[in-house]
Amino acid sequence: MNLTSLVNEIKSKQSFLCVGLDTDVRKLPDGIEKNEAGILTFNKAIIDATKDFAVAYKINTAFYEHLGAAGWRVMEETRKYIPDSILKIADAKRGDIGNTSTMYAEAFFNTLDFDAVTVAPYMGYDSVQPFLEFKDKFTIVLGLTSNKGSVDFQTNTMYDPPLYQTVLNQISNWGTPENLMFVVGATKAEKLQEIRSIIPDHFLLIPGVGAQGGNASEVCINGKNNKGGLLINSSRGIIYSSNCTDFAEQAHEAARKLAEETQPYASI
Amino acid sequence: MNLTSLVNEIKSKQSFLCVGLDTDVRKLPDGIEKNEAGILTFNKAIIDATKDFAVAYKINTAFYEHLGAAGWRVMEETRKYIPDSILKIADAKRGDIGNTSTMYAEAFFNTLDFDAVTVAPYMGYDSVQPFLEFKDKFTIVLGLTSNKGSVDFQTNTMYDPPLYQTVLNQISNWGTPENLMFVVGATKAEKLQEIRSIIPDHFLLIPGVGAQGGNASEVCINGKNNKGGLLINSSRGIIYSSNCTDFAEQAHEAARKLAEETQPYASI
Repeated sequence: MNLTSLVNEIKSKQSFLCVGLDTDVRKLPDGIEKNEAGILTFNKAIIDATKDFAVAYKINTAFYEHLGAAGWRVMEETRKYIPDSILKIADAKRGDIGNTSTMYAEAFFNTLDFDAVTVAPYMGYDSVQPFLEFKDKFTIVLGLTSNKGSVDFQTNTMYDPPLYQTVLNQISNWGTPENLMFVVGATKAEKLQEIRSIIPDHFLLIPGVGAQGGNASEVCINGKNNKGGLLINSSRGIIYSSNCTDFAEQAHEAARKLAEETQPYASI
Repeated sequence: MNLTSLVNEIKSKQSFLCVGLDTDVRKLPDGIEKNEAGILTFNKAIIDATKDFAVAYKINTAFYEHLGAAGWRVMEETRKYIPDSILKIADAKRGDIGNTSTMYAEAFFNTLDFDAVTVAPYMGYDSVQPFLEFKDKFTIVLGLTSNKGSVDFQTNTMYDPPLYQTVLNQISNWGTPENLMFVVGATKAEKLQEIRSIIPDHFLLIPGVGAQGGNASEVCINGKNNKGGLLINSSRGIIYSSNCTDFAEQAHEAARKLAEETQPYASI
């Protein structure tokens, strides 16, 4: 998928919603088998229930690797079930020396045919660049993450400018908005404005909205750019809206609400 | 596997050798089918040919993910074929927010039963700590990597002390030599001595020896500690010693030579 198609999908649905498929076999709702087949059934029901509002789905690889090769098979089948017009992200946080990163890129972009993959920045240029080589694919590099541990290195005050700013600054020169995005776990106005001053043009994948407490309107106001520029992710807040047999209806409602919050800003 | 068993294996074999199974289906030698079955046949032959010298095998997950779920199956079968007394490392470079890192740790330590997994440090404490919770398992955190891109952030001179030193300093307090090691892609005396002054007690997993040019003796002299403290990895330099039908014999020879270089220091 290229940037124009993504922007068109955002315009058409008037939504920045990304639904995170962090599907845990142990949390499947009533009426769904607690095994690999159950995960696929659940994912398909969630996709059916949310696809009118979602412009992206983010598959968290950890939750599938948890079941070994059988889990990878479910990940492959889930990816295939996502409609063509919707961005398919492997949230894999890979990154290694050049020839190994090439293998990861081929795995996610070719073998599994994802549109985008998340990548960790620690190993630098030759760990990121192999992902950027792929046409009509997106590399989404970790900039500032939303977890507590982001203080240890990313925002450690012993470094000025902080590490995450150096990461955004440098890596934004390695790709363009056509092939490079950033994970930015910021939901506060001030931080988002600061980040937009460093990378005005790239799309931001923003976790931490909804169940994790971030406010979608504030994110939109301070994070959007003239292409839209946002993918606002919610995982647990949507897929686990209910653990009863109405889970799909409740996921539909949760997705509709979050998409609606972004609607005034996603009309671009 | 616990630290005592690893140290005993090193003493018994008088070797620090770790063999990297970065098996690329496109590089399989003559006489081996170029498919998943061929990879497994090849890996088993390499393990048989090198197990008298190796104290660890390192499986690079990218090369298996390249083939999707079928590749993961080969990874599982390869792991099972490695003898019990030898450390089994998943070189996966994972790391995510807490609940996702827990899923990765369960995937590699429980589902696949690896003894160790490599982890990226960028996301900080709660991305690393879930791996450290597992008894008799090792978390191997990226400290200083051997690729060119390490200059972008790890050794970027705008930061003093450099980022990799802060990573080693902080993370060494999160675990003990019983559950925590570091990837250190340094083969020069000065750098290894400097690293040993920060983390004297932890094991170091050292890539970049052999095919990549590092000198094993120099690594041993400057990197070993009183527990041995070293796993010296060679991947391509051993497994692709020959692309003819004598590949296993040649791998045996390459492993023997590298182990022999470490022997004077691995007697502990």
